[in-house]
Parts: sequence; structure tokens; C-alpha cells
Amino acid sequence: MEKINDIEEKVINTIRKLALDEIAEANSGHPGIALGIAPMLFSVYKNAKINPQDSQWFNRDRIVLSCGHGSSVLYSTLFMFGYHLELDDLKSFRKLGSITPGHPEHDVTDGVDASTGALGQGFATAVGMALAESHIRAKFNKQNMPFCDHNTFVLCGDGDLMEGISYEAMNIAGKFKLNKLIALYDSNNITMTDNLDLVSCENTQQRFESAGWNVLTVLDGENHKEIEKAIREAKKSKDKPTLIICKTVIGYKSKLAGQAKCHGKPFTKEETAEICKTLGVSDVPFKIDDDVQNYCKKLQKTSEKAYNNWLKLEKEYKQKYRKDYKVLFNGKDDMIERISKISFDKDIATRDAGGAILNKIASKDNNLFGGGADVAKSTMAYITEGGDYSPKNRSASNIPYGIREHAMSAISNGIALHGGLQTFASTFLIFSDYMKYGIRQSALMDLPVWYILSHDSIYVGEDGPSHQPIEQVEGLRIIPNLCVIRPADANETKEAFVMALKSQKPTAFILSRQKLPLINSKNIEDAQKGGYIVSKENKKLDAILIASGSEVSLCLEAKQKLSESGVDVRVVSMPCQEEFLRQDKVYQNKVLPKTCLRRVCVDAGVKEAWYKFTQGGGVVIGINSFGESGNGKEVASLFGLTAETIVKNVKKLMK
Amino acid sequence: MEKINDIEEKVINTIRKLALDEIAEANSGHPGIALGIAPMLFSVYKNAKINPQDSQWFNRDRIVLSCGHGSSVLYSTLFMFGYHLELDDLKSFRKLGSITPGHPEHDVTDGVDASTGALGQGFATAVGMALAESHIRAKFNKQNMPFCDHNTFVLCGDGDLMEGISYEAMNIAGKFKLNKLIALYDSNNITMTDNLDLVSCENTQQRFESAGWNVLTVLDGENHKEIEKAIREAKKSKDKPTLIICKTVIGYKSKLAGQAKCHGKPFTKEETAEICKTLGVSDVPFKIDDDVQNYCKKLQKTSEKAYNNWLKLEKEYKQKYRKDYKVLFNGKDDMIERISKISFDKDIATRDAGGAILNKIASKDNNLFGGGADVAKSTMAYITEGGDYSPKNRSASNIPYGIREHAMSAISNGIALHGGLQTFASTFLIFSDYMKYGIRQSALMDLPVWYILSHDSIYVGEDGPSHQPIEQVEGLRIIPNLCVIRPADANETKEAFVMALKSQKPTAFILSRQKLPLINSKNIEDAQKGGYIVSKENKKLDAILIASGSEVSLCLEAKQKLSESGVDVRVVSMPCQEEFLRQDKVYQNKVLPKTCLRRVCVDAGVKEAWYKFTQGGGVVIGINSFGESGNGKEVASLFGLTAETIVKNVKKLMK
Repeated sequence: MEKINDIEEKVINTIRKLALDEIAEANSGHPGIALGIAPMLFSVYKNAKINPQDSQWFNRDRIVLSCGHGSSVLYSTLFMFGYHLELDDLKSFRKLGSITPGHPEHDVTDGVDASTGALGQGFATAVGMALAESHIRAKFNKQNMPFCDHNTFVLCGDGDLMEGISYEAMNIAGKFKLNKLIALYDSNNITMTDNLDLVSCENTQQRFESAGWNVLTVLDGENHKEIEKAIREAKKSKDKPTLIICKTVIGYKSKLAGQAKCHGKPFTKEETAEICKTLGVSDVPFKIDDDVQNYCKKLQKTSEKAYNNWLKLEKEYKQKYRKDYKVLFNGKDDMIERISKISFDKDIATRDAGGAILNKIASKDNNLFGGGADVAKSTMAYITEGGDYSPKNRSASNIPYGIREHAMSAISNGIALHGGLQTFASTFLIFSDYMKYGIRQSALMDLPVWYILSHDSIYVGEDGPSHQPIEQVEGLRIIPNLCVIRPADANETKEAFVMALKSQKPTAFILSRQKLPLINSKNIEDAQKGGYIVSKENKKLDAILIASGSEVSLCLEAKQKLSESGVDVRVVSMPCQEEFLRQDKVYQNKVLPKTCLRRVCVDAGVKEAWYKFTQGGGVVIGINSFGESGNGKEVASLFGLTAETIVKNVKKLMK
Repeated sequence: MEKINDIEEKVINTIRKLALDEIAEANSGHPGIALGIAPMLFSVYKNAKINPQDSQWFNRDRIVLSCGHGSSVLYSTLFMFGYHLELDDLKSFRKLGSITPGHPEHDVTDGVDASTGALGQGFATAVGMALAESHIRAKFNKQNMPFCDHNTFVLCGDGDLMEGISYEAMNIAGKFKLNKLIALYDSNNITMTDNLDLVSCENTQQRFESAGWNVLTVLDGENHKEIEKAIREAKKSKDKPTLIICKTVIGYKSKLAGQAKCHGKPFTKEETAEICKTLGVSDVPFKIDDDVQNYCKKLQKTSEKAYNNWLKLEKEYKQKYRKDYKVLFNGKDDMIERISKISFDKDIATRDAGGAILNKIASKDNNLFGGGADVAKSTMAYITEGGDYSPKNRSASNIPYGIREHAMSAISNGIALHGGLQTFASTFLIFSDYMKYGIRQSALMDLPVWYILSHDSIYVGEDGPSHQPIEQVEGLRIIPNLCVIRPADANETKEAFVMALKSQKPTAFILSRQKLPLINSKNIEDAQKGGYIVSKENKKLDAILIASGSEVSLCLEAKQKLSESGVDVRVVSMPCQEEFLRQDKVYQNKVLPKTCLRRVCVDAGVKEAWYKFTQGGGVVIGINSFGESGNGKEVASLFGLTAETIVKNVKKLMK
């Protein structure tokens, strides 16, 4: 057994030990990182402004473990620092129903600030948190009242920093001079399968400096004192985010130290006991020595004073700045009210409607903070007042993300996780492909991020197949827990925003580039039910036409033609399938009566979404190939998106 | 009118002029880049080894315009250099059915080496081409026979270089010392909406140097002589790829020079005529001065000698190295034959089957060249012989991509576009989200890239929802022209590879992490039809169970249970829906007779894919929420993926 120099080192070794115990008990997990990164985690939690008794404290420092496969050691750290975890929770690591899942989940484990797992996401999400903090600080803090004023820490590994998203996020953080962002890089020169040298020759310091970062290096990343020194140094940075490169050893003190082999293979209980002996801590599983227990109780109270001061400050803020406080934490009803006054009476593109609505929300005190990936002025998701966010204009609401979609999505998640702001992220629908996983994370974490995605179909025309969504809307619809709304006209767009505000769900708005005729539905508010009758049959119900977005007016056109030849159809607009399917069966059957199985669904994208509505015969008109470059209407016509095709199909069904 | 210094400058101005004429005629396109980038394009084509009369010449230099919105000026350049484009083609720019679409498409326009449009893709694709060249050169060239030995040029803009994929690709190129890759960066400090300064403070030179690149700067990027000098310099690089930063002016010589406004807004015909006057070229639309015409004829023959020498060399190579030549260009039958000898008689994971098959293909002379994003040893898509590709081992077949999925996909496209190699890209299925657009590009370009995606469902278990695919298989299925195959066992996996080899289609193999029981089908070869009867009913057809992958054996288990209670069902394995739907109606009806609408589809993912088979009632068992961390079987059970659930649903249908 090695001699332990100080009690803190013993605490760190206990954190290591508990992580290995978790992994051995589960016979599943990642021991290498657990041994290597413990001093970094300890140093961060020790030096962070946190209160484990109130893990949701608004002004706490945010801490993100981007390399989420290190969950075991995050849980043991949280446990030692006094968050609401029990030893039994550590014992049920990675088991079904436990609060200690395989990768950190923010809504499952107390103290986890972000769900992580897929590499790179956490790093960018932390940038979002720091960005949110800087904006709230500038816009909502009052003189001598630092209501929001905290650091954001992120721990990341080689994998995180190899992912493209990390470069995008790094550049945004550098450009925006997010000096309160401190990233700690677990630099162990090992990736999952081999030495880093096999796949990279990157000079990390040079890389981050090229993006405007402050870079510090801790040569002995297993020495918490060195790390703490660097953290104190980083906190002094005035105009740059800081990267602390910690040279660590994967599988520290194990027989596999420094080797890729210990990345994902659990040590047995026997091996774990051996390592515990080397670490100078109890080799009895989950046993913690008393001196460590006692010392940790002290650690748990480090931010007590700051916390109590802030509580007082919050009380005062709430009294003096009632409106601001409401805007930050309870502004949704006001926003809904503002929107409710809008009514569109002209045929405009739904992207234009979206822009108008966003600006209506922003017309008074508001907490909107979002942006676009260089196309905000085309998606129209741009707040005309206040200009672009920049280090010199941190209270501005528009974030110029640059051409960095993937980071935009994860940063949006960070903003939403931070709290206090309603964020939005906009680009052309086709480029949602670039941020697929980030959008999935919004849905997985159930964050009210608004994805404003315009240029929604082959109707974009001339730009051709690389820019024409085909499978994108359906690709988003099938993400669990994501609300996808494709409004048929400007007024449905308004209802879409009301839906998003009411539900507080992650929502994708699918908007058109081209003008869409007003459908003039009298019961437009029913759009909030996801699907509703836009135009009822006159007498007898011969068939039902179902569509969303631009295809609804196509269906109305077809209805007109059909009525001329004596066929009586109903047109149903279905902006949000998910919401429609959440309605009770009575309503669903009212809109789509089971007695009428002659149904034609129309979509300027893949057909897959619609078969569930054509059960029992019926037709789906859609596009299951790539688009073409040319005039939008001509392209649509080429693919059979015409009133004539609809008419033909209805008549065929009638036979 | 300005005085033109030399004839080449006039050629460049004519290229500019024609591009503007195209845009004005179409009233659509991107004039800013056309004016700015013309000297770069001219310099590249002039100094490249190409033969416009044989645009598919195997040993030509590859040229990729990553900033594909500059298509107009690419077409005018190709036209001036003598590729198979007519003035009429330029006149029908961006029109439906033309060979001059809105963004470059490699299978539409002669001389276009890669389809581009979404930013960053082309840059990474070019890295793939250079990588392919380096591998073929090492593995297939013979002494004094440089069969493959060329440069790869890529032109890119600020947008390309802001995307995360460009960083991933940059690092791969730097690590692999792809010295024959020359990237030219159109550095005009303007993005679509504003000045670059709004979104970036990056030091590009430092950035590329941090990744092991050679960086040159051309201060006057509108001066082709300076650019050509830099290209000549870049060609001398022995062990680094080169970035040439060309400081250019967007909208050069127009009234909007240097402004974002001229990014995407066409000049009118009148404005175009004005600019032509300034440029010293004819202001009559599409008119080319005789001196320019004549000079270009000379330019078109620059590589004539190299071309003719190579033709001779090819002839000799073909004679002397018949086998190598066949492996490069016609090896698929041999590969199929090798696979055909495999038969699996043990229950193994389909990822293991995939690995065995890949290695069987690689057991003799082969042109396999692919890799994984740090998980090749878990996806099993790793060729055991020959080790990892590196600058010192360029003939090795495994590409260690690092944790860079997005670039991996686009690089795979580049390898496939290059020709001569069968490439594969592997990672966990969940991370296909990171490369969604790259996969889409494989499909759009119809390239035979193999995506080997393992860990295909919630059965991955402990890693939890961030690692458990739910919507991913369906998300891939709906990409047009992508063949998605999810085999039920090891032997179906074999059929899947045969399918991919026969079809030469972009293919995604969806493989399990866990062991799958052999389904022991007698007509396993019918798997190649996409769907087939695995287990027929005994006497009367009470119901049909349909599934793919791991759910097929679940259905077989349910069948067993059902037969015990006198219910007689058929089990259909549907590894590839797309292929099944391509079969004739007779076959489809044989497998899924219309007379039996009692159908139960089972999927460990979203239900959407299956409704088309349950038309007229029937049940889909699937998961439309996120997964859970825990033991795989327990998680599956939680979501109702059990034989019991299937039995219950069949019995319900029977009532």
C-alpha cells in the first residue's frame, strides 16, 4: 500500500475506488477514465460554486462531463460531495431503473447538469451554458446585483475534441470571448482502440490558440494541486475561454495503466481490490474510511456563503425587478398573449410568418436568445431589434452562429439547460441533417428548444437535390419526444408557436420558402390539436385528403376540381401528427372517421409518415427519390405534386 | 473599359462573364463567388493534369469545388477548358433537365468530380480522393509504372472551413501526410449574411499548421499568376498537404464588390453588361471573343503528353498485371465467390459475421480500403491482415479515422468517387446520426459505399439511451437510393454482402452487438429478395409475423408458442424493405398474401417503417420512445419486445 500524502488525495482515491466498485458490481462500464480523471473532477467540484443540497441553484457553476462514459466516477464524485445519491445507487450502476445510468442523464441523477454520451456534445453544450450566462448577466443583472454570474466547467477527452462539433463550438466560444468557460482536457493519449498517435498529430495548444483561447497545461494531471492551481489561474482570464490540458494516465495505478485495453473492459472484483490496495483505500467494496467521510462533509459546504448571499439577492431582485424575474422564469403566458393578437390576412411564406411571430414575441420584454447558422436572414428567424450578440453587445438576442449547425444545436441545448431563456436555432431544413444528434439530444433531455427550419421541400427549386429536403421532415418526426409542426399557412404558423409555448416541448417548425395561400380555416385554432378539418365535405363524404404544409392548399385546389365533377371530399390539415395521435379517439375519429377509408395523403417528401392514416386502402402521394434542380413548381409537377394527380387518385379510389 | 494585361486575364474575365450570363439568364445563382473565385479555378485547371476529352481518365488530377454554390463559374470554366458542355448548356443553367444544375452534380455534368452543395462535404470528399490515390499508389503501382499518381485539388470557402467536418478531414489529411492534396481557400472575409468577423476570430494559418499542414498565402487572390506560383510551390510538398489561402474579393469588379449582398442575389442582365464592360469582355450575353476562344484551345491540350503516356502505361499494366487490374476494376465476382463459400453454423452476433465476411473478401487479392471511427474493433469491420493505414504503411487496408464520423462518410464518398477501391465505413449505428448528410451524399451520388453499423438497437443495454438506436434504422431507410439491410442472423449477413456486391449500391448494414440465434432457413438465398418466408405455416395461414434483425428469432419463438395453442402462423424475415418492394407483385403476394391481413410487425425501433405492410388492420410492435440503461434483455422486455407480446397481439387479431 502506498503512502498517501494528504487527505484530499485519499478522497480522490476513494472516488476512484467507488467508481471501480460500481463498475465491478455492474460488470459493465469504463474503468480507464474513472482512474485517470478523478483528480480533475475532484478539483472542479472543490473549486466550483455549488450547493449539493440545491443542485438546481440558478447561479451555481455549471459542470458538464462531456466524456460521459466516465459516468461511474462522476457519480462517485457527486456522492462524495453530498449530492442526493446513496451508496445503494452506486451499487445499482447501469441497472434498469437506477438513478445511475450508463451515461449521465440530467433528469435522472441529482447534480448532473447535462446528459452526455455521444462525444463532443457535452463540450458544445457547455459553451451554450456559458453563452447563456454571459447574455443573462448583460441583460438581466442590475447594478451591484450579480443575479447571474458563474463559471461553466466542462471536462472532455480526446474523443470529444476530435469530433467536428468541438471545433465549431471552440470557435464560437473563442469569438464570443466566453472567459467564464473553463474546459479541462483529459489528455491521456489513448483512444478507445489505440494510441492517439495512430489518428492524430494535432497540436492542441496551437489549435485552441488559433481560435482565441487561453491555454494552460498541467503536466501531472493526476496531481489535484496542480489542477486546482490552473483552475484558479483560468478564473482570472478576462477575455478568453480557457483550456486546461491535463496530462493524465488512463487506468492510473492499475496494471493496465496507459493502455487502451482498460478503456471499456471492467476490472473484476479481485482486480478492483488489488487496485484499491495500491490506492491506499479500503478494498472492501463500497466501504469508505471515516477520515474521508469526515473530510468530505467539510468540502460540501464550500459555497455556503455564496449560496446564502445569492438567496438574499434573489429575494431582493424578485421584489425590485418583478418584471425581469417573470420574463426569466415565467414569461410564456405573456408571449402567448402577444402572439394571439396576430392575424395574417395575406399570402406569405410561412418562414415570413415565423419571423413576424418571433418579432412579436420580442416586441416587449422577453427572454428570447437564439440564432441561425448564417441563414437567419433567409429563415427569417431574426429579431430585428438589438442586433447581433457579440462580446461588445452581449445583451443582443441574435446569436450569429456562423456556418456551424451541429454546434448550434448542442449550444441551444446548453442555453435551454441553463435556464432563464427561450432559445431558438434556425437553418434550412436540409441542414438539420448536420445537427441530427444535437436535435435528438434536445428531445432526449426534453428541452424547449425551437428549431426553425425553412426551405422545407423540393419547392426550393433551383438549388437542386443537395438543398431539397425529401426525407428530412419524416426523419425529424420519428425522433421520440420531438414535436414536429409543418404549418399550412401563416395563421397555422401562429398556432404552431402557441403549441410550442404551451407544451414547452422541443419543437421543430418546418417552414416554407415560397408563399403559401391562406387556407382561411374558420377553426384554425384546432391546428393545435395536430390535425383538423380545414374544409368539410358538402353532403356526403366521398374521400378524405390529408396533408401538411404547402400540400394542404394543393388539396384544397383538388377539392375544388373534384367538386366540379360531383366528388365530395374533406380536406384535413395535419401540421403535427404526433399531437393528433395524442388526441382522444373520439376526436381522431371525428376528423378521420373509420367509415371513410378512401383517403389520399399528400406530401412533398417521403411517403412513410402517412401509411398509418391509409390503413385499409388509400393512397399516399409523395416523393421517394431525390429532387431536381429547376423552377420549384416545375419540379413539383415532375414529381406529381399537382391537384390533377390528387384528383386522379381520388377518382381511382372511388371506383 | 479596363486595359487587360494578358490574354489569360481575359480568359478569366470571360469565365466570369459567362458565369454572370448564366445567372442573369436563370435569374438565380450566386454571382459573388463567381467573380471572386474565377482566377483560382482557372489556375487549378490550367495547372492540373487533365484531359477534357476524357474526363474519366483514371490518373487525372481530381478537382472538387467544395463551395458548390459557385457552380456557374465551374461550368463556365469547364466550358472554356473544353469539357463536353455547350453554350446552350450554360444558357439553361438551373433549369429543369439541364446538365447545369444549381449545385454541381458529378453524374450530370462532364468534368465534375464530385457533387457538392452542403458546405464542408467537398473538402472532406477531396481528402478521400487523395487518400485513395495514396493507397492505390502504394499498393498497386509497380516499379517505374506510376499507374496512379496524381494530385487532388479542392476549392473551398469560409463556409466550408467553418463546418466541423472540415476540421475532422483536415486532421486526417494532416496525420496521413497527404502531400498530394492541395486546398485553395477562397478567403474573402464574407459569409452569406455578413462579414466573417461577426462569427469568427480564427487564425486559419495557425489552425492548419496545428494539424500538420503546409500553408501558403496569396495576398492578391484575384491574380492568377500569384495563385499559379503557389500551386507550383504546393506540388513540391513532400510530406504535408497544402492550404493556399487566397485573399479574394467577393463580387470582384462589381458595384457590390466586398459585400455580402452579392452572395446570392443575381445581377440583372443590364448590371451584368456593365460588369462585362468593366472586365473588358463582350457585354453581349454568352458572346466570347475570338482571341479568348483561340487561346483556350491551346490550354485544353496541356496534359496531352501525360495522357498519352499513361494510356501506353495502362496497356502494359493490364498485360503484365492482369490480376491487379482486375482487382481494381472488376473484382466483384471474385469477392462474391469467396463469400459464397462461407456458411455459419454457430449463433454469433451479426457484427461478428460481418467481420468474418469482410476478412474472407480480404483473404486474397482485393481492393478493400475502409475503416472505422475508433470502434472498428467493436463493429468488427477490421481486416486482420496488414494493419492500419499510415504514412509509413500506405498499402494497409484499414483506415483509422479517429473519432470523426462525419468526415469518415464524406471521405468514403471521395474514395468511391476516385474509383478502383471498395470502401467501407464503420461505427455504432447510433453515430450514423453524426454522418447523416454524408450518407445522404453517398446515396445522392449513387456510390457503392458500405456503411457497417453495429450495436443496432436497445439491446446494447447498459450504455443507455444516448447509445441506443430507436429511429436510426428507419431514418436510414427513408434516404432515397440507400439500401438498408438488417440481417436476422449470420447467414443472412452473408446474403447482405452479396446483395451489396451485386447491386453496387450505397448500402447500410445494420448489425447486432449481441449474439443472434441461427434462423436455419432453407431458402436463405431469398434474403437477397429483401423479404422472404423463413418459416411457413403448417396448414392454414392464421397470421403473418414480419420482422428484421434480432426480432426475427423473436417471431420464431412466438410462432412456436402459438402453435402450441393451435395458432398457425408464418414468419417473414424482411432484412431489406426497399429490395422487397422492388420485387414483382407476384412474389410480394406470395410472401405476404393479400388474403391474410392479420399481420404483426415487430421492430426494436420506431413503428413507422411497417405500417405499409399492415394495411387493412394489423399491428406494429415497436418503440416510439427513448431507451433505458440496463441489461439488454431486460430493456427489451420493458418495451414489450417479447414472444409473449407477439403471441398476445396475434391472438387479439384472431378474435
